[in-house]
Amino acid sequence: MKKGPLTPKGFRDINPPIAKKRREIINKIADTLENLGFNPLETPTIEFSETLEGKYGDEEKLIYKFTDRGDRKLALRYDLTVPLARYVANNNPQFPFRRYQIGQVFRGENPQKGRFREFTQFDFDTVGVVDINEDAKIIAAAIKSIKELGFKNAKMAINDRENFKSLKVEDIREIDKIYKIGKENTRKELLEFVEKSKPTNRLTQIFEILKSEYGLSYQDFFFDPTLARGLDYYTSTILELKPDGKPEEQSIGGGGRYDKLIGMFAGREIPAVGFSFGIDRLTELV
Amino acid sequence: MKKGPLTPKGFRDINPPIAKKRREIINKIADTLENLGFNPLETPTIEFSETLEGKYGDEEKLIYKFTDRGDRKLALRYDLTVPLARYVANNNPQFPFRRYQIGQVFRGENPQKGRFREFTQFDFDTVGVVDINEDAKIIAAAIKSIKELGFKNAKMAINDRENFKSLKVEDIREIDKIYKIGKENTRKELLEFVEKSKPTNRLTQIFEILKSEYGLSYQDFFFDPTLARGLDYYTSTILELKPDGKPEEQSIGGGGRYDKLIGMFAGREIPAVGFSFGIDRLTELV
Repeated sequence: MKKGPLTPKGFRDINPPIAKKRREIINKIADTLENLGFNPLETPTIEFSETLEGKYGDEEKLIYKFTDRGDRKLALRYDLTVPLARYVANNNPQFPFRRYQIGQVFRGENPQKGRFREFTQFDFDTVGVVDINEDAKIIAAAIKSIKELGFKNAKMAINDRENFKSLKVEDIREIDKIYKIGKENTRKELLEFVEKSKPTNRLTQIFEILKSEYGLSYQDFFFDPTLARGLDYYTSTILELKPDGKPEEQSIGGGGRYDKLIGMFAGREIPAVGFSFGIDRLTELV
Repeated sequence: MKKGPLTPKGFRDINPPIAKKRREIINKIADTLENLGFNPLETPTIEFSETLEGKYGDEEKLIYKFTDRGDRKLALRYDLTVPLARYVANNNPQFPFRRYQIGQVFRGENPQKGRFREFTQFDFDTVGVVDINEDAKIIAAAIKSIKELGFKNAKMAINDRENFKSLKVEDIREIDKIYKIGKENTRKELLEFVEKSKPTNRLTQIFEILKSEYGLSYQDFFFDPTLARGLDYYTSTILELKPDGKPEEQSIGGGGRYDKLIGMFAGREIPAVGFSFGIDRLTELV
């Protein structure tokens, strides 16, 4: 049999056994989320280019843009967050608005091992309230989802951006890399800073809610003073999920509170807290 | 609250209540198909333009094409069938290869009422065998799926292209429109032709299998001598699913046997039989 044309670089077929696993994973997470009061939303794969422009800094060059037959400037969605902000501004849903969305996103990255130009994100967010109960609900939803998938040792690393407010950006970047570069290669004053770091009042209250409302314990989450997360739009709670519970391992999802982003189209601040699973990596690990 | 940017014409958000219904519909069909031995496949949203070119006749102008930063000519997929043909040529799966795929497809059509430029198809096909048992399995899968969704009166209209082999294309087109234009506006010799039409031997055998193997009856399917289907790639069995069991109503899915298409990339004939649900229309009716 002759070979057919290839898929473009960074794009791939997902064979039946893997596709089946993906379907099971997505359904388990979706069921967990629906039980906690999140509902699905779908937004189109294609947005106007200008809806996405100016939102991703240097990464904007990775957006797939094109012009249609009617000379409209269109783009493939780069993530599910900017479309959520557009949706909220246009539909004015009742707050708290808890939605999840599973969707393909597209980035013209250099496809290295395991990196694709089309991949599947599973996002869930609560929009419209600053209440720490919603931070706790997002954390609990992520932990319950991952435990349902069989990751018995998984733990959520949690920190508060507030803890870094006295530091310079370079310091925060160095702290974020402690596990990567090793303690021996980290400046002593930063190690001391980390050692003295404590959960903020907000975090202490969130931890209490996780225990009392969701039956979780320090087996399921921990305070991680080294966690900073690169994306600068987080405003307080920051989250990374560790599949085997080890602070130093690569996370399988991240999130946090971002109170200044969702209002970008609405012309006013709209608080939000959310989490995102990368379904491709998750499927490799299950 | 300020309004945000719109979605491009023909592209839309799907609100939580509808998105939830879609998820339930998709899961019910997928479960039915997996029970019958079909497995999910995923192919990328983007293919090389040339993979899609020359496959859709006049409709080719509706394909969304664009050039990426590396000057590669890419296209958004137009359906799930050409990607299936590419997949089969590249992966040489064991036959019979029974797969289902749920995916977004893109067509730059003039968006009229209820017509979108991005929509969701649910396809299932058996590739690699001419066996009429596979025709019966596809028909049974579609009927069982639709009954699971609550369409108690749904019926599959079935015909065989073989029945039209003595006719000219214009005659076939006129017969296909009998319910639309009315019997009074149809040429008498064509009405007589239809009245004399009988199930072919293949169809008679398929009907027997549907009864004996799948517990179906003439409550679930019927021979429809007026059914022709526009797409000219069907080679024998042709199918349209009628949600309320009436031959004259708009169908909610169609399919048939197409033995000359899947081999387009493989350089040899590969028989196939399949069916496709339009998830958007199905969701409106459920």
